[in-house]
Amino acid sequence: MRAGRATVSSSQLATLFGFTDAQVRKDLAYFGHFGHPGIGYRCDELIAEIRRILGTDRQWTVTMVGVGNMGRALLRYKGFSAQGFRIVAAFDRDPRVIGSQIEGIPVFDIAQLGDIVRQQHIQLGMITVPAADAQQAADQLVAAGITGIVNFAPVALSLPEHVGLVGVDLTTELEQLAFSVANRTRSR
Amino acid sequence: MRAGRATVSSSQLATLFGFTDAQVRKDLAYFGHFGHPGIGYRCDELIAEIRRILGTDRQWTVTMVGVGNMGRALLRYKGFSAQGFRIVAAFDRDPRVIGSQIEGIPVFDIAQLGDIVRQQHIQLGMITVPAADAQQAADQLVAAGITGIVNFAPVALSLPEHVGLVGVDLTTELEQLAFSVANRTRSR
Repeated sequence: MRAGRATVSSSQLATLFGFTDAQVRKDLAYFGHFGHPGIGYRCDELIAEIRRILGTDRQWTVTMVGVGNMGRALLRYKGFSAQGFRIVAAFDRDPRVIGSQIEGIPVFDIAQLGDIVRQQHIQLGMITVPAADAQQAADQLVAAGITGIVNFAPVALSLPEHVGLVGVDLTTELEQLAFSVANRTRSR
Repeated sequence: MRAGRATVSSSQLATLFGFTDAQVRKDLAYFGHFGHPGIGYRCDELIAEIRRILGTDRQWTVTMVGVGNMGRALLRYKGFSAQGFRIVAAFDRDPRVIGSQIEGIPVFDIAQLGDIVRQQHIQLGMITVPAADAQQAADQLVAAGITGIVNFAPVALSLPEHVGLVGVDLTTELEQLAFSVANRTRSR
């Protein structure tokens, strides 16, 4: 779209992503019939379909629990809002930050988490507290009715089955790189 | 190991990770023969083998290009050194941070990147500059002989084939979560 093109073929997508044509077609076909014979994919249709598949065709309200270094960095990260993730509240237990705003996002006492998540119908939570506090933060989010959690704390969380969970271990990214370098292969 | 156990079976690992026994055995068998019939895996052997496979059985020297919010958060992240990733130098072009130290790591002028990476035999680079500056930072790292890059900037980098690349797009983590919530499945 940015390049001013209206359509794209599976082989062009394959070249861009380093897959085979067949893999691109097979992966997309898993979700429905998007292509047009002899044309390929219409870019606007394909983007809309992928956004629908990913669930980024809507606004999600998000909260951040923990506004230490990682939390602050994420609050300042512009990519979230561009994809429809609106961070509406942050929580911490440090009295020096409670009551402040970071990038316009109010920081509340973590003791208020349940009330505010319920009042504001917050759907997703990001956990950036220290590992020792992460399970408690997750339990509070779940009790308040959150439907999904991204966990940046380096610890495995135990959550009920109905709550979505994505764990982000930043060390894993460096391990992937070390693996690719140590094995002289290209990981991506 | 932390739980004081000397051995672990593939079915115990499978339960921990949410895979099947067969998948655990098949995945590990891809890299060699680690198990002992009737015993399972010896924890110390398995950890050593996995560290060898990942390339985390050695020390890696790492540099960080860009010490804005994300760079600072990563410099303060303790998980890297625990896995053998030693950040020895950081670079920025902002005169207010050049010459300072963050968590004991010196911040140099990005103009010195080539010299310092060569002198200190730095192996891996993390890029946390804005998207518009990321390719230039990558080119400087590659010219200085770096063997792998973790890219946190939300842009695709073009690198020579011999350089390892891992891209981290934080928005992708939220998209994964939105997908799992929107589709009522558990992504992990």
